This record gives sequence, C-alpha cells and structure tokens, in this order.
Amino acid sequence: MNILLTNDDGILALGIAAAYKELCKLGDVTVVAPSDRMSGAGHSITVFEPLICEKIKIEGQFSGYSVSGSPADCVKLAIMEICPKKPDLVVSGINHGANVGINVYYSGTVAAAIEAAFFKIPAVALSAVHEEQTGFANAAKYCVKVINKLLPAGICGVININIPALSSGQPKGVKVVPQSTMGFDEHFVKEKNGKGQILYQLSGGYHRDKDLPSDTLAISEGFITVTSLGFDMTDYNGMKILNKIKW
Amino acid sequence: MNILLTNDDGILALGIAAAYKELCKLGDVTVVAPSDRMSGAGHSITVFEPLICEKIKIEGQFSGYSVSGSPADCVKLAIMEICPKKPDLVVSGINHGANVGINVYYSGTVAAAIEAAFFKIPAVALSAVHEEQTGFANAAKYCVKVINKLLPAGICGVININIPALSSGQPKGVKVVPQSTMGFDEHFVKEKNGKGQILYQLSGGYHRDKDLPSDTLAISEGFITVTSLGFDMTDYNGMKILNKIKW
Repeated sequence: MNILLTNDDGILALGIAAAYKELCKLGDVTVVAPSDRMSGAGHSITVFEPLICEKIKIEGQFSGYSVSGSPADCVKLAIMEICPKKPDLVVSGINHGANVGINVYYSGTVAAAIEAAFFKIPAVALSAVHEEQTGFANAAKYCVKVINKLLPAGICGVININIPALSSGQPKGVKVVPQSTMGFDEHFVKEKNGKGQILYQLSGGYHRDKDLPSDTLAISEGFITVTSLGFDMTDYNGMKILNKIKW
Repeated sequence: MNILLTNDDGILALGIAAAYKELCKLGDVTVVAPSDRMSGAGHSITVFEPLICEKIKIEGQFSGYSVSGSPADCVKLAIMEICPKKPDLVVSGINHGANVGINVYYSGTVAAAIEAAFFKIPAVALSAVHEEQTGFANAAKYCVKVINKLLPAGICGVININIPALSSGQPKGVKVVPQSTMGFDEHFVKEKNGKGQILYQLSGGYHRDKDLPSDTLAISEGFITVTSLGFDMTDYNGMKILNKIKW
C-alpha cells in the first residue's frame, strides 16, 4: 500500500514522526508536509505565490518533502508532482491536539484529508489530545489499530480519528460519533503594544456541548472517536426553504 | 437592521465597497475586513499571534475596521469586540470571482459566513464572476435583490449567492442549486529560481462537472445561484459503514 503522510504542525513535529513509525508497518510511506507550523490553517491554499519543495532528512526518523505551504497545498503537490504513484491512502497527522466539534473547520489536519478526497483518495485525519508527558508514540499505535479495523471494509471518503488523553490510562474504547456543531466559548485577551495599538489574542475555545452524544463528549469521556466526514456543504433542509421562495 | 460586512479580498477591494453602498439601503453597516488580500484563506484563523485592528476611512466610500487576520478572524473579532450590538445579519463579499463547487472550501468569503453561523447569526456569502469591465456595482444590486427575497422568510444558517458574468447582459434568473462536489482539473506550472529550486505555481481550477445540476453548471449558464450551506460535516451514510465494524 502506498501511503502519503502529511500534517499541519509541520514536518518537524513529534506527531508526524510517531505516525510515520507506525504507518511503515502498513506500507510505503511518502512524507510531504509543511515547512512551518500551520495550526488553524483550515482549508487555506496558496494561490498568489509558488510553492517551494525541499527534500529533507530528519536524522533517525525519515526522509521527506518540506513544502512552503498549507496542508492542503502539500496534498495537491504530493499527488500531482511528488508521489511516484497515486497514493492508496492519505494520512494526515498526528495533530497535536484534538480535532473535534467545530475545530474540524479550523483544522489543517482535516483539510488535508478532505483535499485527498477531492482526488477520490481515501483519507484519514489523526489527532490526539496533546500531553507532553505521554508524547505521541502510544497515540500512534492506537491510530494504526483503528486504521487496521477500517481497512478490510475499505475507507470511504474521510475518516476523522481522535485519541483521548492517555496520561490517566488507556482509552475506554472506540466510539463512532457525529461531529458536534455547537461551537465554542472563546474570547479575546487585549493588550496594548508600544505604539498604543490594541492587540487581540484569541483565547479559550471550550466546547459548549459536553452533554450531547458527539465527538466532543466522547473524547472528554476518554474514548477514541471515529467520525465519517463528507464535503457536500449543501444544507438540504435549508434548500427546501429556498425552493419555496418565488424568485 | 445591524449588518456586519466583511470579505476576503481585503478592505480596499472594489467588491466590498460596492456591497457597502447597496447594503446601506437595508440597515446600519459595520465593515470589519482583512487588511490584506486573503484569497484562498479557507477557514483559517490566527492562533499564535494577536490581531491588530485599525479604524480606517476610505475616502468617498466608508469608514471601517482593518484587521491583520483572516476573514474568519474578522468575524470573531467583530462580533466579540467591535460591533456595538450583535449583528442581525453578516454579509461577506462581494468576492472577486465565483465561489461555487469545491471552491466553497477554499473560500475565505464563505468561511466568514460559516463563522457567523457558529455564533448563530444568519449570514450571506456574496461572490461574482470577476470581469474588469463591469466592476461590482451591478453585481451588488443583484445581490441585494436576492437578499431582499430571502429576508421575509428569515435567513436560516448560511446562504451562498453567486452572480454570473454580466458583460453579456443580465442574469437569466435565479437558480436554487446544490454545491457541486466534483472537484477541479488543475496542475502546477514549474519554474526554477536563481537558487536552482523548483517553484510550483498552482494553475487551472476548471470545474469538472458542467453537465450536472449544480452551482457550477448554473453559473456557467448565466444564472444567479443560491445555495443553503450547513456546517455539520458528518457523513451519515459513511457513519452506517463505521457502525457495522466490530470495534
């Protein structure tokens, strides 16, 4: 199996190295990832400037391609220019931090997987609650266990996998749960700079809906979450209302 | 009606000025838009740096707030810090270029409208096929005509409106159509720079599905397109497959 591996924390991140090590057990892995940390990149792409791609070797870990762009850019460039064959599977992650609820929209990790689906390639987004003391080695093992369960049925579209905090023990199990759409409680912390300008730093981001059956609830309860994601944003209930208007 | 107006082409773009002029007929308009051109920004947000917001006056057009961030950042900051009251409607655009098909994913214009929906505020994304000779004044008039048709029923969630090329006459009418998910034909143009590095410039982006009933087909036929967008990315058909796996 030919696997393309990318992420949004950048090619030097711990999460991608941990994922690489485990994914090598499944097939040939080509790493094409952003040069820089791209958290919050969403589904941004580089339209006005060219991308620069450099082959790099990360001692003791892997050789890969470092790209001056977003996670979605990396997937486009990898599929169209870098990978020797069309990948059988695109894996994005492991993201440093969970991508559940509306974070799925802000996430470059998920966007890379969605970009692969535009090319009709099965894709998996991997994220783990970030805990410095546990690193990503165990999280990567759980991710590959889940992928191994998915493979026999065939991965259809994009699968979003999140690993809960592991510092207090192993996950309680796997839950197949929908994406929460309830949003965040967040705020801006304000500070003045030397020029007298106000600086607004986004802070918070606490999910609102911990009592509904969703990805945000399940991960907070210690379960691995597995969600199938699509990319038709049409709201078919909303369309019924629009169709009643006399245009 | 209190209207928040933003865009992704930046506060100095022609499209936002044209939208401002027409939207003033509907209510009080507060403009909070990116300082820079943010095309392709998708649903990116600024997480590691603070935002700077400056009040600016664009002579003969409007006063507004220029923000060092993405369209989604502008909506967050406007709602949480800048707008005197919670807006009744968020309008994003008019984008220079249509946002149909999978462009909806790359679009900062649409992302700003989705961000408003996270705050439970009705939102409209406006985009127009970019033609230098026609500008955006006529496109803005058509956009507000469509908004006026939407208002009596109440705008539910996010409505994506696209105005076709106007150089060959007025639109053929309005079509309520789903988002196309068929993707693009695109490629990278390669060039070497002085250092011998290959530069990859994304090019193309031609929609694949001009024969299916969708936003991409309707706009190419000269219709105004209206689409209701949601933000639950869960693929409920895919979930049925996941639920059959023995975890």
